[in-house]
Amino acid sequence: MAEKIVIIGGVAAGPKTACHAKRLMPDAEFTIIDQDSLISYGGCGIPYYVAGDVADEDELRKTSFHMTRNEDFFLTAKGVNVRTLTRATAIDRKQKCVHVEHVETGKKDSIPYDKLVITTGSKPFILPIPGANLAGVYSISDLHKAIDIKKQLATGKVGKAVVIGGGAIGLEMAEAFADLWGCDTSVLEFMPQLLPRIVDPWFSTMLVKHMESMGVDIYTDEGATEIVAGDDGRACKVITANRTLECDIVIMATGVRPRSELAEEAGLLVSPFGIVVNDRLQTSDPNIYSAGDCIEVTHMVSGQKFMAPLGSLANREGRIVGDNLAGIPTTYPGAMGSFIMKAFERCIGATGLSLESAKAAGFDADAAITVSSDRAHFFPTEAKIPLQIVFDKRTRRVLGVQGFGPMTDAVLTRIDASAALIAKEGTIDDFSLCEMAYAPPFATALDALNTAANVADNMQMGRQHNVSVPDFMDWMADQASQPDWVALDIRHPNEIDPFKQKFGDTWVPLVYNEVREKYKTLPTDKKLIIICDAGTRSYEIQIFLNSVGYTNTLVLGGGFNIIKRLEPDWWPNK
Amino acid sequence: MAEKIVIIGGVAAGPKTACHAKRLMPDAEFTIIDQDSLISYGGCGIPYYVAGDVADEDELRKTSFHMTRNEDFFLTAKGVNVRTLTRATAIDRKQKCVHVEHVETGKKDSIPYDKLVITTGSKPFILPIPGANLAGVYSISDLHKAIDIKKQLATGKVGKAVVIGGGAIGLEMAEAFADLWGCDTSVLEFMPQLLPRIVDPWFSTMLVKHMESMGVDIYTDEGATEIVAGDDGRACKVITANRTLECDIVIMATGVRPRSELAEEAGLLVSPFGIVVNDRLQTSDPNIYSAGDCIEVTHMVSGQKFMAPLGSLANREGRIVGDNLAGIPTTYPGAMGSFIMKAFERCIGATGLSLESAKAAGFDADAAITVSSDRAHFFPTEAKIPLQIVFDKRTRRVLGVQGFGPMTDAVLTRIDASAALIAKEGTIDDFSLCEMAYAPPFATALDALNTAANVADNMQMGRQHNVSVPDFMDWMADQASQPDWVALDIRHPNEIDPFKQKFGDTWVPLVYNEVREKYKTLPTDKKLIIICDAGTRSYEIQIFLNSVGYTNTLVLGGGFNIIKRLEPDWWPNK
Repeated sequence: MAEKIVIIGGVAAGPKTACHAKRLMPDAEFTIIDQDSLISYGGCGIPYYVAGDVADEDELRKTSFHMTRNEDFFLTAKGVNVRTLTRATAIDRKQKCVHVEHVETGKKDSIPYDKLVITTGSKPFILPIPGANLAGVYSISDLHKAIDIKKQLATGKVGKAVVIGGGAIGLEMAEAFADLWGCDTSVLEFMPQLLPRIVDPWFSTMLVKHMESMGVDIYTDEGATEIVAGDDGRACKVITANRTLECDIVIMATGVRPRSELAEEAGLLVSPFGIVVNDRLQTSDPNIYSAGDCIEVTHMVSGQKFMAPLGSLANREGRIVGDNLAGIPTTYPGAMGSFIMKAFERCIGATGLSLESAKAAGFDADAAITVSSDRAHFFPTEAKIPLQIVFDKRTRRVLGVQGFGPMTDAVLTRIDASAALIAKEGTIDDFSLCEMAYAPPFATALDALNTAANVADNMQMGRQHNVSVPDFMDWMADQASQPDWVALDIRHPNEIDPFKQKFGDTWVPLVYNEVREKYKTLPTDKKLIIICDAGTRSYEIQIFLNSVGYTNTLVLGGGFNIIKRLEPDWWPNK
Repeated sequence: MAEKIVIIGGVAAGPKTACHAKRLMPDAEFTIIDQDSLISYGGCGIPYYVAGDVADEDELRKTSFHMTRNEDFFLTAKGVNVRTLTRATAIDRKQKCVHVEHVETGKKDSIPYDKLVITTGSKPFILPIPGANLAGVYSISDLHKAIDIKKQLATGKVGKAVVIGGGAIGLEMAEAFADLWGCDTSVLEFMPQLLPRIVDPWFSTMLVKHMESMGVDIYTDEGATEIVAGDDGRACKVITANRTLECDIVIMATGVRPRSELAEEAGLLVSPFGIVVNDRLQTSDPNIYSAGDCIEVTHMVSGQKFMAPLGSLANREGRIVGDNLAGIPTTYPGAMGSFIMKAFERCIGATGLSLESAKAAGFDADAAITVSSDRAHFFPTEAKIPLQIVFDKRTRRVLGVQGFGPMTDAVLTRIDASAALIAKEGTIDDFSLCEMAYAPPFATALDALNTAANVADNMQMGRQHNVSVPDFMDWMADQASQPDWVALDIRHPNEIDPFKQKFGDTWVPLVYNEVREKYKTLPTDKKLIIICDAGTRSYEIQIFLNSVGYTNTLVLGGGFNIIKRLEPDWWPNK
């Protein structure tokens, strides 16, 4: 008799598992069950559907060759049965069957399996605050909600939007509201920064400043405490400790939780991060596999367990389950959370650990931050991209990379190459030598990523000594807090004037190529913070000053290009 | 006394070595000598200078912070002496000095060294044909020649250009002539394809077809045999075995040779690929290092020696020499020739070995070719990119990757991630799992590179059986040559008609999602070449047909998207 394989959950990991495994085991019988009527959609596309980049929700359900991935498609094209509107109510591991109930008719049934795959995904975390369930408050949990939101917007009655949660989905939704629909849009984030645990605070700040310049109000360190209904019963105000925001719509994007109850009730091992699986994605019952948002994942860098609810991982994991169902012992090394996000005219990306995450995971870590050209500086489309390499000070292993740049694939390129190397436990040296392809329209002879690695090398070898970006920003904001420094500004004199005016004697100009001649005029009784445009010249000057006895210097990594992104208000004629 | 370090050659590797080493050894004395008056320029930018993307040649000599890298800059900013117009005539290894001669005054001198670095670069190979030295025939060997070419173009008298050599420089120059200057431009390539040894023939053909569509005439398998002078003594015709091309300018871009005579005369070990160095870039004399175009490099995949004249490598190598001069034992793992090139509205990239190079190097290699979306298929800027992964059939190691796509960084992203993994001896599995960052504006949930690796997996595991692209193109071009096949076209019926009309009974339509129902109508006595848009559906159908006893199938990897790029003329309403 044909082997029976049942898959609970039909969005990403489930269909991937079923279709891949069916190709490996053409004689087996596959059944996907899902409580929704819509399956196999690109959930990550929802913000772009709301933003209008994707005209019709059906596009999110189509293959690249324009067939809609519905029940009929799976049956005729893939040979896979799908039962929609079918909720799994219990797993009977002894009898090896899944109890199900039809969502509309209530009809109960039981589906036998030889092997079971749980791909139940995640569910949105709803803040336990008054008003969280009011009409007009949406989570981005399925396509139906997205359709509702777009309908709301199309009424023309949504002028003010509040997004609760400064993670990727919240920020993408904020852009959609502000950009296409012209809403007054605010984002509330409970943590002190956007994209917490994904990027470091200074990368978050670059993102905040850009989104603010595009008209989105962002409040970090500020959670919603209540949502208030208007006369019509719909959400009309969001209240925080500091303010009341009027709104016509509220997006609750405060993260997700693994949908692991069914597994737990069946007695499978489940952690707070999801269903526990081994590296072949088997649960604690060898006849049951699991993949996607609902599983606990091992971080490839920290070794720690975490939740990694990403569509990209769900698809990789589905393929691995498929292999293992068919007896191919493919293993899953874990994930590192590679991340990229569009934000209006910029993008932000990361892979591996942030500096703060690395330290929290027990690494003796530091970060090299640089600003380099993404392509030849003489090429017309060139842009500067801040890149940061987080490294282990003892082993030289690279632990993570972050980037911020224009809305091209320039940051993506460096993140993807980094992810490849980090997966292979690449060191600073591997990054320094990584042979990024070069031609002037695409890169610089030493790629931005190589340059960032070279800065990390200089730091790790004890040649470059930096002031941290947050420290220096604090000192500039409040000179009194740290009176013992002066800025040694080595840029072209006409770039310096406004700072000289603002900071007076704290600002010492001495142009880069005159330092060797005139360094004796520099003060020796204060910390010299050397600043150029990108950080690289400052390092040269630090080395030189050190060689002539000035050991009182620190470099501002990334230089003015970083300051400009963190404090655009300080700029004249901006 | 200060250690004296002399560097012969001041374009890329030389200045990099000097400046990096000076930072590590502030007390040492560095002298760069160069026979030219112009040093430290971005030679790879020359085609973009000619194309007008770079307005002024001085831009190619400037730093990203707009200082011109001349003798004064190196002295005041870097603390490095430069002697231009100074030719090294001999190296006296016993006395440890370099004999030099001033190019203009003829004044002779000798410069003592403790350590010497040879960074003499490469020189253009000039075809030994009549007329090669005529006025109007240029090689792209230095900035002076580039300035001359642009002056010629600016006279308005250059209407016809012939480029001899279909490598990167030749093709970039051809684009410059055709695009900015509107010249009738022809490219001659002696070998049967463009970019020989870098990409496989079918990738070359995609490039040929695109450049032809942009108005450049390309003749492969056709070398220049003579250049003929007009009455004014300037080149006016280029003659080949098949034709005579009129011209107002000729670019000789037939490759470069290492400039290694000085090293050879000094008794250093030199191979046909350049100066022989160890992995610390020391020559056969431990007091003499070498870097850049003039050295022999080890290929990281094949282990073979080769010449790798790339500005990106010169900079990496310079840093390594600098480290070693300072006693830091950094080693050079070799190179894999990562490559990217703009061609009008497209780009082509590669890293590692092509399929043909891999076979020539003794690998039991095969190639998986796919066409995937570079970003979510529902995102407005999505484009399809052909990607090819070359792999070792026995070890599953990935040996090389090639890509062709739009003029964005989409191909670059996949090439750079591949280079990172190949450097770490990545296998198909590493590529399949490589955690490329995903969001709809940047990638697909399973990145194009992951998908290509999955196809390689299917092939290596014996699940997918392909017809080679060149074989199938031959069969389509001449049906009589291979009468025993039919095309099983599983696309939407309205895409099929023109092919049905052209190929008649050889073309069997059966739409993808009806195969399971109607496969019994298919012929069993012929080879079925399964064709879809991108190759992935064809594989599914192959698997299915195999499971029902049809073992007479082959998949066309990349599907119609590849055919369209290779034979655009076959398309109706193109």
